[in-house]
Amino acid sequence: MAKLADISLAAGINILSAFIFFVAFAILRLQPLNDRVYFPKWYLKGLRTDPVHGGAFMRKIVNLDWRSYIRFLNWMPAALRMPEPELIDHAGLDSAVYLRIYLLGLKIFVPIAFLAWAVLVPVNWTSSGLENAGIKNITSSDIDKISISNVQRGSERFWSHIVVAYAFTFWTCYTLMKEYGKVTAMRLQFLATEKRRPDQFTVLVRNIPPDTDESVGELVEHFFLVNHPDNYLTHQVVYNANKLEKFVKKKSKLQNWLVYYQNKLERTSKRPEMKTGFLGLHGKKVDAIDYYTTEIDKLSKEIALERDKVTNDPKSTMPAAFVSFKSRWGAAVCAQTQQTRNPTIWLTEWAPEPRDVYWQNLAIPYVSLTVRRLIIAVAFFFLTFFFMIPIAIVQGLASLDGIQKAAPWLNPLVRVPVVMSFIQGFLPGIVLKLFLIFLPTILMMMSKFEGFGSISSLERRSASRYYLFCFVNIFLGNLLAGSAFQQLDTFIHQPANEYPITIGTAIPLKASFFITYIMVDGWSGIAAEVLMLKPLIMYHLKNFFLVKTEKDREEAMNPGSIGFNTGEPRIQLYFLLGLVYAAVTPTVLPFIIIFFGLAYVVFRHQIINVYNQEYESGAAFWPDVHFRVIIALLVSQIVLMGLLTTKKAASSTPFLIVLPILTIWFHRYCKGRFESAFVKFPLQEAMMKDTLERATEPNLNVKGYLQHAYVHPVFKASHDDDADEEDAMSLKWETESATVATKRQSRRSTPLPSRFSGASSPSMLDSIKNDPES
Amino acid sequence: MAKLADISLAAGINILSAFIFFVAFAILRLQPLNDRVYFPKWYLKGLRTDPVHGGAFMRKIVNLDWRSYIRFLNWMPAALRMPEPELIDHAGLDSAVYLRIYLLGLKIFVPIAFLAWAVLVPVNWTSSGLENAGIKNITSSDIDKISISNVQRGSERFWSHIVVAYAFTFWTCYTLMKEYGKVTAMRLQFLATEKRRPDQFTVLVRNIPPDTDESVGELVEHFFLVNHPDNYLTHQVVYNANKLEKFVKKKSKLQNWLVYYQNKLERTSKRPEMKTGFLGLHGKKVDAIDYYTTEIDKLSKEIALERDKVTNDPKSTMPAAFVSFKSRWGAAVCAQTQQTRNPTIWLTEWAPEPRDVYWQNLAIPYVSLTVRRLIIAVAFFFLTFFFMIPIAIVQGLASLDGIQKAAPWLNPLVRVPVVMSFIQGFLPGIVLKLFLIFLPTILMMMSKFEGFGSISSLERRSASRYYLFCFVNIFLGNLLAGSAFQQLDTFIHQPANEYPITIGTAIPLKASFFITYIMVDGWSGIAAEVLMLKPLIMYHLKNFFLVKTEKDREEAMNPGSIGFNTGEPRIQLYFLLGLVYAAVTPTVLPFIIIFFGLAYVVFRHQIINVYNQEYESGAAFWPDVHFRVIIALLVSQIVLMGLLTTKKAASSTPFLIVLPILTIWFHRYCKGRFESAFVKFPLQEAMMKDTLERATEPNLNVKGYLQHAYVHPVFKASHDDDADEEDAMSLKWETESATVATKRQSRRSTPLPSRFSGASSPSMLDSIKNDPES
Repeated sequence: MAKLADISLAAGINILSAFIFFVAFAILRLQPLNDRVYFPKWYLKGLRTDPVHGGAFMRKIVNLDWRSYIRFLNWMPAALRMPEPELIDHAGLDSAVYLRIYLLGLKIFVPIAFLAWAVLVPVNWTSSGLENAGIKNITSSDIDKISISNVQRGSERFWSHIVVAYAFTFWTCYTLMKEYGKVTAMRLQFLATEKRRPDQFTVLVRNIPPDTDESVGELVEHFFLVNHPDNYLTHQVVYNANKLEKFVKKKSKLQNWLVYYQNKLERTSKRPEMKTGFLGLHGKKVDAIDYYTTEIDKLSKEIALERDKVTNDPKSTMPAAFVSFKSRWGAAVCAQTQQTRNPTIWLTEWAPEPRDVYWQNLAIPYVSLTVRRLIIAVAFFFLTFFFMIPIAIVQGLASLDGIQKAAPWLNPLVRVPVVMSFIQGFLPGIVLKLFLIFLPTILMMMSKFEGFGSISSLERRSASRYYLFCFVNIFLGNLLAGSAFQQLDTFIHQPANEYPITIGTAIPLKASFFITYIMVDGWSGIAAEVLMLKPLIMYHLKNFFLVKTEKDREEAMNPGSIGFNTGEPRIQLYFLLGLVYAAVTPTVLPFIIIFFGLAYVVFRHQIINVYNQEYESGAAFWPDVHFRVIIALLVSQIVLMGLLTTKKAASSTPFLIVLPILTIWFHRYCKGRFESAFVKFPLQEAMMKDTLERATEPNLNVKGYLQHAYVHPVFKASHDDDADEEDAMSLKWETESATVATKRQSRRSTPLPSRFSGASSPSMLDSIKNDPES
Repeated sequence: MAKLADISLAAGINILSAFIFFVAFAILRLQPLNDRVYFPKWYLKGLRTDPVHGGAFMRKIVNLDWRSYIRFLNWMPAALRMPEPELIDHAGLDSAVYLRIYLLGLKIFVPIAFLAWAVLVPVNWTSSGLENAGIKNITSSDIDKISISNVQRGSERFWSHIVVAYAFTFWTCYTLMKEYGKVTAMRLQFLATEKRRPDQFTVLVRNIPPDTDESVGELVEHFFLVNHPDNYLTHQVVYNANKLEKFVKKKSKLQNWLVYYQNKLERTSKRPEMKTGFLGLHGKKVDAIDYYTTEIDKLSKEIALERDKVTNDPKSTMPAAFVSFKSRWGAAVCAQTQQTRNPTIWLTEWAPEPRDVYWQNLAIPYVSLTVRRLIIAVAFFFLTFFFMIPIAIVQGLASLDGIQKAAPWLNPLVRVPVVMSFIQGFLPGIVLKLFLIFLPTILMMMSKFEGFGSISSLERRSASRYYLFCFVNIFLGNLLAGSAFQQLDTFIHQPANEYPITIGTAIPLKASFFITYIMVDGWSGIAAEVLMLKPLIMYHLKNFFLVKTEKDREEAMNPGSIGFNTGEPRIQLYFLLGLVYAAVTPTVLPFIIIFFGLAYVVFRHQIINVYNQEYESGAAFWPDVHFRVIIALLVSQIVLMGLLTTKKAASSTPFLIVLPILTIWFHRYCKGRFESAFVKFPLQEAMMKDTLERATEPNLNVKGYLQHAYVHPVFKASHDDDADEEDAMSLKWETESATVATKRQSRRSTPLPSRFSGASSPSMLDSIKNDPES
């Protein structure tokens, strides 16, 4: 067990490194050259332009104002200054609520830490369990002295731990409930906000059954005209544009190279040459600019062809469509109800935001979905418990013997002492580290394979998988010796009542390890986050080689996003550690509080200045966050029970059994009380919003607003082709549906009417006037 | 272990007792006197009247036609003759689908039995595990010889068991899926049937928030006029009429006594006298007829007063209402959507059938519901695992010592040898038996306390509890020694991988016990069911003392109903036994097949001729049935794994792990594919039905049809009071809602318009005409 001095040393190192990161950040961010790296959000919002347009060249690159360096930490209060409503407006609800997770950590752990230090630390400190236990020869550390380890077996003092555990549970649950209520209110407020969004009116319909006589578009139209006659407005069929997307991506890559060579030409005044073979290493030498120009031309033609094929070939239409309704009420009704007898066809759900749609997955049929889920469940089980096996194999191959066997011709190289020590010392670690770096990507691929239809749900799914992986391999893996698979084996061969005891015994022993972990992963990791080294380097590389116009520079920025799929599970690990150690080793708590505080400031800064969110799900992730804190709470209770059992506090332990039951019940209560706000959309809200809108904007053209909201992004660039097609569709719709006045025909040539257009929408008006009951 | 001879003897006894029951039934049912006991269903339907009105008095009571006694079993083919669609029409979908559970048993087990006897019996028979195991001194029975016990440890022959287990699983799943699909289709067909039912148009709204300015009725009306303007039609507030109901019940009891004394007067020509005290044992002597007449008058006045209070006092209105819509589409939309931000108020769900409503529970608020659920969950856990404790205490009190201690004055009586032997021999068993008889009632009370709003859901909930209880206390309880609590303790202290082994080892040993159980509980129990001894006795008692008019005789019949809450879990026990023993001891299978066959015939007869269903839930219980068979399948797989582990068939056992995973996946697939049909109602169906109805009956008065559909049964008897009130309400509604034409006012004085009335409903028509988009 580590002594206080060791911990202090580790703390010193980590504080120093965090300090260095902050100083480096302070210096780098003040340089105008890096402005786009550290403030991309403002550029994307169009609120900031390149700092100095006139002035000395030097001042464009380096900030010479020495006064700004003194206040090198003043970004922290600045980050805290923006009020929450403004933050929601600036960065979206997802980001604002994501920050609340850190706040939740502070809210839970600050009072818990006070209580633990006020009650448990004196109780533990004045005990003499360690001295009496006959391990006087081992110098017990100070941390152990104020932990539960110091309380004598069978002591009556354990009652204080039990009472405090009750207090912790009630406080955590109270905070969780308050927070759930608050987030729910924020979400509903956000959804009912003044701003009109296409997803409020639109429902995603999947698994449209094939029909021999009608195209998907016609089928959708007829189905909804029959079954939602008063509400149906328009629809957009989903096209399988994956191939087209690939072409477009390839084209943009080629264009990058073209720009690179054009820049080179400008600089060197010599026409650059290149080889056409693999990586430009072999093949015929050609003029680079000519080569890329012709390649791009060729690809452009292919793209035009493919685009034509996608929009006209019925095989390219997927059995899915975005169906828009005249009112939010109509959309809310359709999204929440079942359409046909067979619950696996005509599946309706709220459409995600247009930018949140994951287009590739929209066409997977129901049976395939369930099979995929089974496959992934099995695969994830093996990934979690057996991931060490392939890594061990790779490590075996990457060892000295392995290399000598597999590639004997490398023998002379391997015998060089430097290489040898590298292989022996670093390679195995690097293999593991590489795997851990790629893990989120692997999990994301798994979620994509499972067939979720929006990026936000993909991230949520990956996050829950990542959490499970961390729980098994970081939390349990470090508590208990051996690989996850060995633990699994041990658990199966152990009586059920031994599990908590096994974990409970290990918990106090590992306190110092986890304190170090919190400092390395939490403190320094968070401080490194703010520095954004990778985007910094990438930006300058791109800036040097590719950037010609302002638009290029915009594209060279890589603000990134929160990364919910990896960020949230990491926070949850701290919740878990905090709750587990709260009653056992209160020393851990201050470290966790510092993590939450630091992370809150850093991420608030990043969200305000850097991250550009990819989507807005309206905090749909909160039920997951809540659930995982509940899991942490349950684990902490079970662990404490196990620990007290080993401490022979038999008379008091049964009182802890009530806690998990109460916690599970609390979870169910919260689920019933709040969760539906994240799954359903209340009709009252929809109706209120509709009525308000009808009163304030009676001439609103909803159809025009929605017509092209859900077009695949590759079509968005130039919607000449599909605008025609959509118009043809809308013409047909107008002639078929008797309610739409003929007036509308005159606007057929404007493919994308402004959403603020004052043009009257007769269909909307008529339906209000004619409908006698509204 | 029992020998074949023992089993044969038990079988003989049970076959004989079943035969005796059937003969007794055949004789009793042919007597005209018992006609109303054995054919009440037909009387209730008005299709049968008392058999002989003219003719000899003797022939009214005893059937003297000897030929009818010869064909004493011909009710069996008669029961099978009615085709299913007619059965649905005659007895409802619930009953028809309930019978399909028995059919499902036959469908699953007949092929399984053939396969088991064709493959496993030869394999087991030709093995010599028992001879070689050195237990030659114990005469191994014939049943053991053809069970898996006879296969040698570590034999390769276990592969056949594994392959057969796969076949069993696939066959069971295939049958289950087919059946689920069939029942789903039947349910949807039934719901979309030609017959109009009030619950198709009606939604039950619970947890209406209190409002200081408006009454519940006004609040409901305003809320739905605003949020479902095109669909809302009318509503009925729920009154707290529990007290009124009690009065009405008491009155009918007093009336029974009055009739009894009046009959006595007629017979004896002497005015009967009675004492007013407890049970008529002490108190003043009064003239009985006068006494009851005045009592009934007094109560009638109280009832009138209470009825007045309930309908006028706002405190008697509960925060719940039945809201009816103009179309099935409107009701389907409202039932499936969330109404307000707060998901715990304005809860909407499909209204149960009027006769299915459990009125007392309609007013329980959300928080109270979750608390109640927690309490009941804990209580049920203790009931299942610790129910032996109070019984042991009662048994202790009811023992010789206990009685002597508690009531020393009984000493002389207790010392009488007959009483002594009764106390020692029978009392403890009777106490246990009494508990088991009252168990369904206890479980039903638990479900009622939990707050379900319909009788069908109460019964479903009780059924799942009863199943759990049987699983733990009959299945596990008989497999393993000791009480359920001792088992629980053993399980907790055992490694997880030992559970299946413990159960697996016990399974083959208990085969003969379960065969006897099947014969006693299954065969004889079913045969006793058809005899209906209790209703028979009750009917004749009532007939003798109380019946004066034809209506009285009608009320004296007690046809009973299926009793889903006890019947279904008992069937499930046979599924469990069948699946568990299929691969282990195939001898069990024929006994189970005979049970399913016999029960199918008997219950089909009872459903056609006797039972009068209390409600119609449209086979809403099927997902539960399906789920419990899946559970049985999982248990059988796990048990087989455990058994094979003890048999050292280590190389083959891992192949069984795939089965539970596939089974769970299959369950999830079925849930997704079929379950929604039992929870939701597809809009397409609703719209189709609505359109059809509008076309065929354009003048239908839906409002008239629905106005009094959901009135509390106590008001139904004489609806003078509430009809006025309802009319006032409907008048108000008409003046407020602009769409309802004034024509309707002229019909205000007809409180209950016939549903076949040809009067036109202008509101329906107008809305169709005015609504430009339909």
